[in-house]
Amino acid sequence: MFRLDELVHRLGGELIGDGALQVARVATLDQAGEGDLAFLANRKYLARLAQCRASAVIVAPDARGLTALPRIVTADPYVYFARVAQLFNPPVLPAAGVHPAACVEAAVPASASVAAGATIAAGASIGENVVIGPGCHIGRNVVIGDDTGLEAGVCIYHDCVLGARCLVHAGVVIGADGFGFARERDGSWVKIPQSGRVVIGDDVEIGANTTIDRGALDDTVIGDGVKLDNQIQIAHNVRIGAHTAVAGCVGIAGSTVIGARCMIGGQAGIIGHLHIVDDVVISAGTLVTKSIHRAGVYTANLPVQPHADWVRNFAHLRHLDALTDRLRALEQRLDKASSAD
Amino acid sequence: MFRLDELVHRLGGELIGDGALQVARVATLDQAGEGDLAFLANRKYLARLAQCRASAVIVAPDARGLTALPRIVTADPYVYFARVAQLFNPPVLPAAGVHPAACVEAAVPASASVAAGATIAAGASIGENVVIGPGCHIGRNVVIGDDTGLEAGVCIYHDCVLGARCLVHAGVVIGADGFGFARERDGSWVKIPQSGRVVIGDDVEIGANTTIDRGALDDTVIGDGVKLDNQIQIAHNVRIGAHTAVAGCVGIAGSTVIGARCMIGGQAGIIGHLHIVDDVVISAGTLVTKSIHRAGVYTANLPVQPHADWVRNFAHLRHLDALTDRLRALEQRLDKASSAD
Amino acid sequence: MFRLDELVHRLGGELIGDGALQVARVATLDQAGEGDLAFLANRKYLARLAQCRASAVIVAPDARGLTALPRIVTADPYVYFARVAQLFNPPVLPAAGVHPAACVEAAVPASASVAAGATIAAGASIGENVVIGPGCHIGRNVVIGDDTGLEAGVCIYHDCVLGARCLVHAGVVIGADGFGFARERDGSWVKIPQSGRVVIGDDVEIGANTTIDRGALDDTVIGDGVKLDNQIQIAHNVRIGAHTAVAGCVGIAGSTVIGARCMIGGQAGIIGHLHIVDDVVISAGTLVTKSIHRAGVYTANLPVQPHADWVRNFAHLRHLDALTDRLRALEQRLDKASSAD
Repeated sequence: MFRLDELVHRLGGELIGDGALQVARVATLDQAGEGDLAFLANRKYLARLAQCRASAVIVAPDARGLTALPRIVTADPYVYFARVAQLFNPPVLPAAGVHPAACVEAAVPASASVAAGATIAAGASIGENVVIGPGCHIGRNVVIGDDTGLEAGVCIYHDCVLGARCLVHAGVVIGADGFGFARERDGSWVKIPQSGRVVIGDDVEIGANTTIDRGALDDTVIGDGVKLDNQIQIAHNVRIGAHTAVAGCVGIAGSTVIGARCMIGGQAGIIGHLHIVDDVVISAGTLVTKSIHRAGVYTANLPVQPHADWVRNFAHLRHLDALTDRLRALEQRLDKASSAD
Repeated sequence: MFRLDELVHRLGGELIGDGALQVARVATLDQAGEGDLAFLANRKYLARLAQCRASAVIVAPDARGLTALPRIVTADPYVYFARVAQLFNPPVLPAAGVHPAACVEAAVPASASVAAGATIAAGASIGENVVIGPGCHIGRNVVIGDDTGLEAGVCIYHDCVLGARCLVHAGVVIGADGFGFARERDGSWVKIPQSGRVVIGDDVEIGANTTIDRGALDDTVIGDGVKLDNQIQIAHNVRIGAHTAVAGCVGIAGSTVIGARCMIGGQAGIIGHLHIVDDVVISAGTLVTKSIHRAGVYTANLPVQPHADWVRNFAHLRHLDALTDRLRALEQRLDKASSAD
Repeated sequence: MFRLDELVHRLGGELIGDGALQVARVATLDQAGEGDLAFLANRKYLARLAQCRASAVIVAPDARGLTALPRIVTADPYVYFARVAQLFNPPVLPAAGVHPAACVEAAVPASASVAAGATIAAGASIGENVVIGPGCHIGRNVVIGDDTGLEAGVCIYHDCVLGARCLVHAGVVIGADGFGFARERDGSWVKIPQSGRVVIGDDVEIGANTTIDRGALDDTVIGDGVKLDNQIQIAHNVRIGAHTAVAGCVGIAGSTVIGARCMIGGQAGIIGHLHIVDDVVISAGTLVTKSIHRAGVYTANLPVQPHADWVRNFAHLRHLDALTDRLRALEQRLDKASSAD
């Protein structure tokens, strides 16, 4: 429970209405009821504001006069909502200390927490307040910054570096070998040792079962504030700029460099050795096969259709070249006919 | 080894031939030999029935007279085959009891089995006959229904609920944080706490390394009898109706609602905030970008081609608009020419 | 540090220049400096050879006269580089022996290494020098060949077979149940027991979080020398021929057979029950929906475009059939007009 004036004291914003009013939860405009603090993040939901049964609401300056509810006026209601939600849902941290069923071969500060079944190899450097979940494996000489948390079953290979205040979800694998082989004439493969590292900045979140491979000679680098969803695959020597967000199931092939503040949609793919500048948005399901030199939104996906329509329309895809030839032939016939007139 | 009359006694169906005949395995029509029970699930394999060397066969009523082999006649031979296969291959369950190398902070019934390296946090509720595999992690206040089994290395975050008779394969992560962030003006991200749960019904099977995120405010919900293959990503607040089956590598983005009895093909993707009704079939590799309001089959994928053909045909895809303009111009020229005649 | 003559003595090739020269690392032409051994693997980088500051370089016979640096001449400089890199980066193997925090119910040779938290079930057969990482689970009757290594958290289900000299990365799941269910009339599913195994050859590398399902009746088979990247899903009864390489995020559906020496690009998908011959290359992001009977390169993906262009061009995709009809109508009008002339 927070009083509205307490929230404004902590998070800023302008309070209109009874500061002593207490709210216990955040909720959407639709679902909010007594004791809830709702938010209007998008003017297209303005109509819902009138019916809203929240006790109070967070609004942008242009909506300050559009409700009689007690309200907090702030430039970005959605960010404000996120910060209030953080206050209402503080992380539940496990007690500090090393569980007796953990196997730790490195120094761990007293403020850190190491759960049962976790293994930490020699030479690892663990920051203050770090939380290592059950069954995690931290390889030789790994560095983990202060206040970083690893959920259950995370594996970090030797020599990798993780910044401060990161959150790594269950099943993530950081620093496995990149996919690097030289091909013999008979088609067999000779492994190229992957001697680079993965170096991850501060404030990075990594979703469940995501994998980030170590570099071949140089490092794979994930910038500060990058947010990675679940089941993303990042190949060796990829570099991702600060604050870029990547949705689930994306694959990024080797040596590709992605700028800062990009947003990559779910199931998108980016082939190797490309360069994508800052502030690029890639739509879901799009395969990027060329470097992108200008900020903007890029797309390549197919419109879903009833199966019968798809069969009818997409049969022509195999014959687009022939179709274009027929069109050109017609143009020439008409041109000829015209000039003959 | 089962006698045919014993099978019919347990599973129903009409027996034609020697009920004392014993069968030891199930097999396909092609591969069956002495001692095998084969099945004809599809009339297109009818020709194989004649050559079949099985000791007996399961057939539908319309094929009852098409073989002289001892046979079981049943409405759905494939379902019958599945049930016989279950009889021949009963699950091998580990002994009940908590392994001394497990770390259990909750009550576990005597009928349950908890393997080495598993951790169960305080407040968890574990049903009768539950099997928790090696290295699994069960978070605070998780509820697991009777007869549910977890293979090795499954992680269930705090407060999530799993029904009865579920089977969860290795590496599955249930209840990791949804991918929810509010964007600051400078492009950095503020985490939105994910305070919902994952609630999974009864008789659900979840394939290896699949991930199901917890909801943001409300829950993520998986209905009874849903079958999920490997490496599926289900985002926060998704709801999947009963008996829907999802093939491998599918990604379903946040807040999308999928009906009952749907079938989603491998590597399909469904973007967020959509609504898909009951009994929809999505073809493999199809990206669904719009809600689907009518049952049926939906498709959007590209015909694979030899690379040279693809280069020739798909170059035109970038210019379809221009192509259409040229076609329209031709039509107008001809119309004009006709009216001039 | 290796002398050049020592390298040539071990790995072959022709030495031109001072054999006593010592090199400490391998590096690319661009990044090499004092003490580095660079390599020219592709004539398109020939210009870089002139500026190269490496101490020595590996070149093909046709480039033997194009540099004054001490050099090793060999038919395939990239393969040679890989072998030199292996010499410079020998694997760091953990000490042999079973960690006291492992739970081992099978015989393990003295040369093998079993880490903390690993579990090995009864009946498993572990080869010489095998390394089982922390938290791995080896099921009943699993066979692991000599010199194979498993990184952390690998799970191998009962009865599966892994050859010699394999490397399995963290989070891999081998032998989970294939996705096999018979559908009841009411839409519910009856599980078909998956009683086959996964059988993996020698010299196979498997990337992090990849999953390979066990067969339904027969086995899933991965040939010798196959290289699998991260997050690949291989369904039940798939068979992959020797030395085929599969990039990240690929999904291969049930019962598909892939030949030897194929290369499958990232995020490609292959539907079930297909047959793909030897020496086929599938481009990234391509969905293969038909069998491929001839070696060669196959592609089906879309050209990425700025979003506005995509909207303009791809709207026509839904109407390709109508477009073709319009073209045909024009052709007929012109033909008619011509014959009327």
